[in-house]
Amino acid sequence: MQRLSRHSEYALNPIEEEDKLSYALASSGKRIIKLNQGNPPLFFPTPKYTIDAYVKALRSGKTGYAFHAGIPELREAIAERHNRLYKADALAEDVVVTQGVSESLLYLNSLFIDPNDRVVVFRPYYPLYKSCIQISAGKPIFVDSYESDGYRFNPDNLKKALSSNKGRRIKFMIFSNPCNPTGMVMQRNELKEIAEIAKDNGVFVVSDEIYDEIVYNGVKFTSFSEVSKGLPAAILGGASKNFDSTGFRIGYTLIAGDDRLSIQVRDKLCDYAKMRLSSNTPAEYAFAESINNIKAHSASLKKMVAQIEKRMNSVYKLVNESDYLSAPRPNGAFYILPSVSMERLDLRDDKELAERLLIEEGVQITRGSGFGAPGHIRIVVLAPQDILGQALRKIDKFFVRHSK
Amino acid sequence: MQRLSRHSEYALNPIEEEDKLSYALASSGKRIIKLNQGNPPLFFPTPKYTIDAYVKALRSGKTGYAFHAGIPELREAIAERHNRLYKADALAEDVVVTQGVSESLLYLNSLFIDPNDRVVVFRPYYPLYKSCIQISAGKPIFVDSYESDGYRFNPDNLKKALSSNKGRRIKFMIFSNPCNPTGMVMQRNELKEIAEIAKDNGVFVVSDEIYDEIVYNGVKFTSFSEVSKGLPAAILGGASKNFDSTGFRIGYTLIAGDDRLSIQVRDKLCDYAKMRLSSNTPAEYAFAESINNIKAHSASLKKMVAQIEKRMNSVYKLVNESDYLSAPRPNGAFYILPSVSMERLDLRDDKELAERLLIEEGVQITRGSGFGAPGHIRIVVLAPQDILGQALRKIDKFFVRHSK
Repeated sequence: MQRLSRHSEYALNPIEEEDKLSYALASSGKRIIKLNQGNPPLFFPTPKYTIDAYVKALRSGKTGYAFHAGIPELREAIAERHNRLYKADALAEDVVVTQGVSESLLYLNSLFIDPNDRVVVFRPYYPLYKSCIQISAGKPIFVDSYESDGYRFNPDNLKKALSSNKGRRIKFMIFSNPCNPTGMVMQRNELKEIAEIAKDNGVFVVSDEIYDEIVYNGVKFTSFSEVSKGLPAAILGGASKNFDSTGFRIGYTLIAGDDRLSIQVRDKLCDYAKMRLSSNTPAEYAFAESINNIKAHSASLKKMVAQIEKRMNSVYKLVNESDYLSAPRPNGAFYILPSVSMERLDLRDDKELAERLLIEEGVQITRGSGFGAPGHIRIVVLAPQDILGQALRKIDKFFVRHSK
Repeated sequence: MQRLSRHSEYALNPIEEEDKLSYALASSGKRIIKLNQGNPPLFFPTPKYTIDAYVKALRSGKTGYAFHAGIPELREAIAERHNRLYKADALAEDVVVTQGVSESLLYLNSLFIDPNDRVVVFRPYYPLYKSCIQISAGKPIFVDSYESDGYRFNPDNLKKALSSNKGRRIKFMIFSNPCNPTGMVMQRNELKEIAEIAKDNGVFVVSDEIYDEIVYNGVKFTSFSEVSKGLPAAILGGASKNFDSTGFRIGYTLIAGDDRLSIQVRDKLCDYAKMRLSSNTPAEYAFAESINNIKAHSASLKKMVAQIEKRMNSVYKLVNESDYLSAPRPNGAFYILPSVSMERLDLRDDKELAERLLIEEGVQITRGSGFGAPGHIRIVVLAPQDILGQALRKIDKFFVRHSK
C-alpha cells in the first residue's frame, strides 16, 4: 500500500483538535462553551456596511474570478490604509491578496524553504507558523519569551538563535504582533531591536499584524514597517479580525521592503496566487469597502475593542484570582495564555487537561503546548462577560476536583 | 542574500502568463478578446437563486468561520448529488470542502509526496497538476494521448509508465474528465480499463470531474466512481463550472474508496483543512442551495450547456476550416486545443505565438506547451459566437501574416 508523505504528519491544528469530540458532546445534548476559536463574528455581528457592500457586489455580477493578486480596488485600499496608519509609502502592487493569512503563510514557506532550511519563530507562536515550516521540510528555531518577563521580546535569545545557526540557511523570522496566543503588544524600541538584529544578520522578517487595530488598555500599536524602513520584510493582515469577517477568507501580504529579495518574494507570491487563479471575488469588494469607509469602520471597531477590553480585563482578574492559573495582562488581540499549576493536578499534561475539561465541564479551550507553551491553556476572550465568568468558574471547579 | 527555494520556480500558471501584458495593452486603449480563462460568469450570469441564497446567508449572519471540512449542509448536498447522479453511496463525511479544487490539489500533493516520489499525469494536462507535484519535490510521469487518436486514453502508455517506474513510489495518477484542455469525455470502457490497471498496480486515482455536467453532442458522462467501486480514489468537483460560480472559490474532494488508504487520505485532508480553519462561509451556503435546488439548477445548466455546445461546434468548424489549425471535436468542458502548423510560420514556438497574437491582434489564448502540448493553442469557448468568430478570423489573419 502507498503511504502518506513523511511531512504530512505536521499538518495539524491544536485549535481544532477537540472539535470532533466537542461536536459529538453537543449533539448528545451537552452545553459546550467554545473558547478555542478566535472568531469575532460569533459575538459581534459583521458590520452592516460591510455586508451591504458584499451584497452589492453579488447583485452586480462580481461572481467570476478576480485578478490573482486581488482586485485593484482592494490592493489600493490595503496600501492606503497601511500608509495612513503607519506613515508608509506602500504601493497597491506591493500587496498580494490571499485566501486568509493562512494561504499567505503556506506560500511564503513554500517559496522560501528548501529541505533543512531554518526559520526563526518567536515562541509562544501561532501553530500554523510551525506547521507550515515543517510541511515544507524546514526546521523551526525557537526564540523564547518568558511569562515572568511578561512575554517581552528577548534580544539575547534572538541573537543566540541566529549565531548558533551560522552556516545553515535561515530563510526568515516570524512573529505575531499583537501576539496570538499571549495578547502582548510589542513596543517600538523592541521592534527597533528586531529590525537591527535582522539587518545585521541579513534575515527577512515576516510580521503578522492581523490584530493591529485590536489594542487596548491605553497601548499604542507600532507596525514593524515603521521601524524597518525598507529592509526585507513582509506584513501580514486581513479582513478576519479588525474587520470582524473571519468567514470571508481574505488576507494579504504587504511587502514592506524595497530590496531585491523583497521584490522577488512579491513576484513569486503572485506566481503562487496565479496557480489558484483568485480569492473569493465578492468578499474582496466587501473588504475594500470595510477599509475605505473609515468612519463606519472606526465606529464598529471602537465598540468591539471596548467590549474586548472589558471582557479581557475581567478574565485577567479571574485568572489571577484562581489558585491554579496566572498570566500577564494582555493589551492586544483577544487571547490570554495562563500557566497552569500542573504539578498540583492529577493530569498528565495540558492535552489531557483540554480533553477532560471539555468532557467534564463542557469548556473548550486549547492546550498551550500547541503554541509552544506546555503547561498553559489558551482562552479566547470574545464571549459575553457572564459566559466567560461561568467558564472560569467551571475551570476552577475542574482544577479543585483534579487536585492531588 | 537569501534566495528562494529551488522548487518555487515551478509555481507558475501559463493561463495567466500574459495577464500583465494584456492588462497593459487594455489600459492603453487596445481592445482585448480574452480567450484564456475558463470563467463562465463573465458570459453567463451566476443564477439568481444561487445569489439569493448567498445574500440570505450574509444577511443572517453566516460570516464567521465554517467547520474546517465544510458546513454539514454542503457536505450532505455534495454527497447526495454524487449518489443521485452516479448511483453511489458516498457519505457527507467523505466530502472535504476546499477553497476551489486548486486547494484540494495542493493538499493532496503535499500529503502524498515525499521528494522524488512519482505521480502519473495524463497528458495533455491541466497545468496545476504538474506544478503541484513539482512544488512538492515530486516527479511527474506523463501518459500521452494523441491528437490523431482524438486524444483517446491509451492503456498501453499507462501500463508502460507504471512498469517503467517499478520500485519507485508512484503515489497516485491524475486526469481530468471532461478534459481541460482537450474537451474530450472518457467513455465507460476506458474508465474501466484505468480502474483495472490502477487496481493491478495498487495506485490511488484522482479524477478531476469539475466539468461533469458540461457535456454535449449527445455524449453521456461516466464518473470514475461508477467503475472504481470502492478502489482507492478521490473525485474532485466544485461550484466553479457546472454551477457557474468561479469567484466563490468552493471546491471539494470526495473520497470514493473505502479502503484504508482512502480513509487516511480523507482524514489527512481534514488536517490540512484545519490549518486554514475554513473556506468562505456564505459561499458554502450558496453552493449548498445551488445543488439542492435541482429544478433551478437544471434549468440554468441546460441553457448554459446549449449555448456552449453551439459555440463550441462553430469554433470547431472554424478551426478545422483554417489552413493552420486542426483539432478533434470536443464534447465536454469549454476548451479546444488545436494544433498549429508551426513549421509554416516564422514563430519560434507557441509561447512567442501567444505573445505576438496578443500584441498584434489583441487575442489572448494560452500556449499549448503549458498543458504539455507544444505547438498547440488552447481556446476558451465561452464568449458569444460573433466574438469567437472575430477572434478566429484575427488568428487566421495573424497566421497569414506570419507565414514563411
